[in-house]
Amino acid sequence: MRAARDAGLRIVEEFVRVGESPITDGTTHFIDQSTLERVASTVTPQPNIAVVEMPRLTDDLASLRRGNWWILVADRVADPGNLGTMVRSAVAAGASAVVTTSGSVDFYSPKVVRAAAGSLFAVPCVADVTLNDLAAAGWDLVGTSSHLQPGAVAYDEADLVSSCAVVMGNEAAGIDPQAPVTRWVTIPHQGPVESLNVAMASTVLCFEVARQRKHHRQQGLGK
Amino acid sequence: MRAARDAGLRIVEEFVRVGESPITDGTTHFIDQSTLERVASTVTPQPNIAVVEMPRLTDDLASLRRGNWWILVADRVADPGNLGTMVRSAVAAGASAVVTTSGSVDFYSPKVVRAAAGSLFAVPCVADVTLNDLAAAGWDLVGTSSHLQPGAVAYDEADLVSSCAVVMGNEAAGIDPQAPVTRWVTIPHQGPVESLNVAMASTVLCFEVARQRKHHRQQGLGK
Repeated sequence: MRAARDAGLRIVEEFVRVGESPITDGTTHFIDQSTLERVASTVTPQPNIAVVEMPRLTDDLASLRRGNWWILVADRVADPGNLGTMVRSAVAAGASAVVTTSGSVDFYSPKVVRAAAGSLFAVPCVADVTLNDLAAAGWDLVGTSSHLQPGAVAYDEADLVSSCAVVMGNEAAGIDPQAPVTRWVTIPHQGPVESLNVAMASTVLCFEVARQRKHHRQQGLGK
Repeated sequence: MRAARDAGLRIVEEFVRVGESPITDGTTHFIDQSTLERVASTVTPQPNIAVVEMPRLTDDLASLRRGNWWILVADRVADPGNLGTMVRSAVAAGASAVVTTSGSVDFYSPKVVRAAAGSLFAVPCVADVTLNDLAAAGWDLVGTSSHLQPGAVAYDEADLVSSCAVVMGNEAAGIDPQAPVTRWVTIPHQGPVESLNVAMASTVLCFEVARQRKHHRQQGLGK
């Protein structure tokens, strides 16, 4: 809730457990522990909960391509824990936006909000786009695949310094092979493990973008 | 279950849903769907389940330091989903072993087994060691911290090519600051996100070890 307030979202009403202090200075209702537990969706709720106005989602995909920005795209990612984790690591790694395609879980599903741990309010989130929309807006679509995609390069040998959209696919089906992907990358892995799950793979990719960009900046500064 | 068999573990007894084929050629019992659902701990169980002999855990910590091996150490990691994910990414990144300290969740807790997705049988798992044991066995303990630890370096600027033990701490308390850590690394992150959770941070670290080692091998080959 503090993350929502700090992001400048409008807190419509706040509900506070008796004995605790409100976080906002707007309309506040004091409620007892048993009411709090019934209203909140977690087993051990925080003492402050609130009704927050949903941020307006940007739908101008080209405007997100300012400068050297990069974004994370979840293509029909179905599991809320996965999408929440993906938003969390994208924000931590410095992504400019997180985009979902139609068929993905809703950004404001309670389990997504919880797994995102406050990061959902820190970036523009754009829902219900298509990969064709992104391609039409000029994005370089970097598709990730756990399978041997023809022409795929190891993720750490791909250029992730230039402006790009890192696309992660559905848990079972991956990215549509017919999608207008510009280039494919893969995370080589050892051992008999099938593959990383989409949230783990996304975390590895996002931090590789951050690593390459940091390295690039340091070289530019002569370090 | 296939992962357990492929790893050479002894399958004591197999239970197969009527109409499905056994995976092993040992003692097999056929059971109906409702019995399967009662026995298995998942909501939609696989049709083949088995009683598997627990692998003997190695306790010779020095023997794991052969050649240039690296290991992942979970120091009092309490959440089974986190430990399972950590094992999964450690195996995918090529770790030689995964070690837990006393106070960590059990490797064979059902939720750890499930989150590890078969990878638990692919590496030696060593439980109930102390960080002092590891230091005494000669391990270079690389502690990771989400806080500003004095002297911590960015994880991608640390040498992870030489033999080392990457140590991840408890979800709330981190690694004991008094622990015999050789050097501290941190994952720099942007945005207002508190920090990555321990499973995500561990995945980033493990794949950075793999990346540096691959890069090192390629340089050695003159590539």
